[in-house]
Amino acid sequence: MDAVETAARNAKDASYRLQSLTQAVRNEALQEIAAALQDHADDIVKANQADVKEAEKAGLSKVLVKRLRYDHAKIKESVDSLFSLVKQEDPIGKIVSRTELDSGLVLERVTCPIGVIGVIFEARPEALVQISSLCLKSGNAVMLKGGSEAHRTNEALAKVIVHAVTDLDERFASAVQLLSTREEINQLLAMDQFVDLIIPRGSNQLVRFIKEHTKIPVLGHADGICHTYVDESADLDMAMSVCFDAKVQYPAVCNAMETLLVHENVALTFIPAMAERFQQAGVELRGDEGACTMAEMKEASEEDWSTEYNDLVLSIKIVSNLEEAVQHINRYGSHHSDAIVATDERAAQRFMDEVDSSSVMWNCSTRFADGFRYGLGAEVGISTNKTHARGPVGLEGLTIYKYRLRGSGHIVSDYVGESAKQFTHRKLL
Amino acid sequence: MDAVETAARNAKDASYRLQSLTQAVRNEALQEIAAALQDHADDIVKANQADVKEAEKAGLSKVLVKRLRYDHAKIKESVDSLFSLVKQEDPIGKIVSRTELDSGLVLERVTCPIGVIGVIFEARPEALVQISSLCLKSGNAVMLKGGSEAHRTNEALAKVIVHAVTDLDERFASAVQLLSTREEINQLLAMDQFVDLIIPRGSNQLVRFIKEHTKIPVLGHADGICHTYVDESADLDMAMSVCFDAKVQYPAVCNAMETLLVHENVALTFIPAMAERFQQAGVELRGDEGACTMAEMKEASEEDWSTEYNDLVLSIKIVSNLEEAVQHINRYGSHHSDAIVATDERAAQRFMDEVDSSSVMWNCSTRFADGFRYGLGAEVGISTNKTHARGPVGLEGLTIYKYRLRGSGHIVSDYVGESAKQFTHRKLL
Repeated sequence: MDAVETAARNAKDASYRLQSLTQAVRNEALQEIAAALQDHADDIVKANQADVKEAEKAGLSKVLVKRLRYDHAKIKESVDSLFSLVKQEDPIGKIVSRTELDSGLVLERVTCPIGVIGVIFEARPEALVQISSLCLKSGNAVMLKGGSEAHRTNEALAKVIVHAVTDLDERFASAVQLLSTREEINQLLAMDQFVDLIIPRGSNQLVRFIKEHTKIPVLGHADGICHTYVDESADLDMAMSVCFDAKVQYPAVCNAMETLLVHENVALTFIPAMAERFQQAGVELRGDEGACTMAEMKEASEEDWSTEYNDLVLSIKIVSNLEEAVQHINRYGSHHSDAIVATDERAAQRFMDEVDSSSVMWNCSTRFADGFRYGLGAEVGISTNKTHARGPVGLEGLTIYKYRLRGSGHIVSDYVGESAKQFTHRKLL
Repeated sequence: MDAVETAARNAKDASYRLQSLTQAVRNEALQEIAAALQDHADDIVKANQADVKEAEKAGLSKVLVKRLRYDHAKIKESVDSLFSLVKQEDPIGKIVSRTELDSGLVLERVTCPIGVIGVIFEARPEALVQISSLCLKSGNAVMLKGGSEAHRTNEALAKVIVHAVTDLDERFASAVQLLSTREEINQLLAMDQFVDLIIPRGSNQLVRFIKEHTKIPVLGHADGICHTYVDESADLDMAMSVCFDAKVQYPAVCNAMETLLVHENVALTFIPAMAERFQQAGVELRGDEGACTMAEMKEASEEDWSTEYNDLVLSIKIVSNLEEAVQHINRYGSHHSDAIVATDERAAQRFMDEVDSSSVMWNCSTRFADGFRYGLGAEVGISTNKTHARGPVGLEGLTIYKYRLRGSGHIVSDYVGESAKQFTHRKLL
């Protein structure tokens, strides 16, 4: 048995023990982690400085080095979010429904942890703290694999967290484990016997690689190809403001707009003005044939419609009606977040019904698709899956449910045959 | 592009159109199917008789031939369940939560269809009717592959269903499709681009094969290795009755007991009497060393603990405490349905918390784990997954949710920076 398999098996055993921890113990664990991060801040920062130094020596880009940095200010942010997580409602043990099946035979559906979560993340050491604390809050064991450029920081953080929680309660033993080598990613992805869910936090390439190489459910999304459709009924001033925000406010993120769709009846009014505003902000435009005649821009290729630029680049297409807009989005989009700007309520309703995306917006920016903005508290990730959890995912995405049935000697044979007892199926909750 | 890919692509397009169908239209479709089944009953029965004749000629077992039979009585059963499905609450369009993010910016989470469901089933032609109607009720497109021994019946049924729904509304075109050859199963399993969920209905072997060969989420379970643990605090008369029901009432099903665990303090009283009752009912017993000294039985091998007999065979093990029982179940069980018989409420609570199964029972038979008995209406299947849907799964397992955000020109840049607006995050529902 190799090291990863042993780790995974231990994580599974830990996950069974975690099932019995009360909310109080799980919250105490988060507080212990917060205290330990503060106590060991100097060691952590020192480890991080060594990582940063090596990264700079290796010629990593300034952006990557910046993301790698984990200083006293960042530690304080981690501590603050731990305290805010403590205050969040317990996701575990919620009774979702209760049904009396028959007199004295009562069925409950109750939320419980999923089990073992595998997390693969790149750079940003704070992700290690955030995701382990989310897993512990929800009673899950977690196996972590961070980027090699942050290995000293990750090791220091994992050590602090593991000590803090196992000192509090030995049932946390093996509940948080850090894998160290790159080869271990593939081994982790093969552990479908022990690992119940994989959460990738990183580039589209990472997510795509993971989805291709595992049978374990993966919570997340690769592409974020988001659209805004400006309907013929749109308030064009509003459309201008919403589209500008969706593209320019933070172009590097998954919920930024990549393609603008404009109804042909308003294209000639809207596109030239919108193009001017985008170009003043440094946005490179790529249009279909019609759009190119209305403003100065490059011609878009077929590939543009399915490209996530993550940058100040935008493709623009003129559509002849709402239906064409919906079809384009369902075909080329990534089912992430798509918006309509319209005053016609029926058009908006139809758009929101027929666009098959995890978030559909009316008269607002796609940039709102985010766990914090949606009021979910901490965000596990944004999912474009069609099962389990979809859209911005909070703690709830780390839970599942079990059924509890309490009887007093009830047997099925009493409910079968000629003189069968009848179920009452009385909804109690 | 091969035939299955074309079919899957068409099913995906259909699934987008189905998103806009009202509850009334979806229910009408079920009624049209019921009417068409009655109108074409003679053709269907004739096709089935040809299948049955061929199966008998090919020497299929009596049990299999019986399952294959689909006569006028069975058609009436299908029609009745269609009418009962019409009456069930609409699983689609339910607003699960509503939050005001800020004045005029309201977020809703609303249930919606998953998209395209692939169903692979063996024998029992009524499964075709049942599963297509569940998919249509929940607004999903469905691709069906039945067993070759029932191909005439399945083709007749699919034809009737397709005509009935497309005559009603052309948006149902390609929403129900039947695949015909065995090779097409593998092609279907590779269609993760178009197919969102696979539901296998058949043997453990079939389910295991499917889980091994697809990246599409699979709803279901392979093994059903269910346990009953008789605690030292148990009412032993109750334990006798519950265990007998769990093993004998219908041994061929997934929620029947396969292993009996007995606390050592009651073993000497309980096992001899229980063994006698089981043996009178023709149950073959296989015990651990201790159990073998208490009653006449074969010695169990290590393999027995992880075997689903699906038959009148039972393994028996003596445990020294609750913890050992829980560990045995989590290790050897299939996380399906497991019961404790106990008068000690704390022991029962601990068992139900720590046993990691989709259904945990106290003082009642594991045989209750079933969609109908749980009051879910129609059952899609029983899932031992740790994500999406778990335990007996009703219509809800064929749904997911999307977020709808309605604003009046709201943009994210107003909520960022020094004079950032604050979110209200006011829970409206």
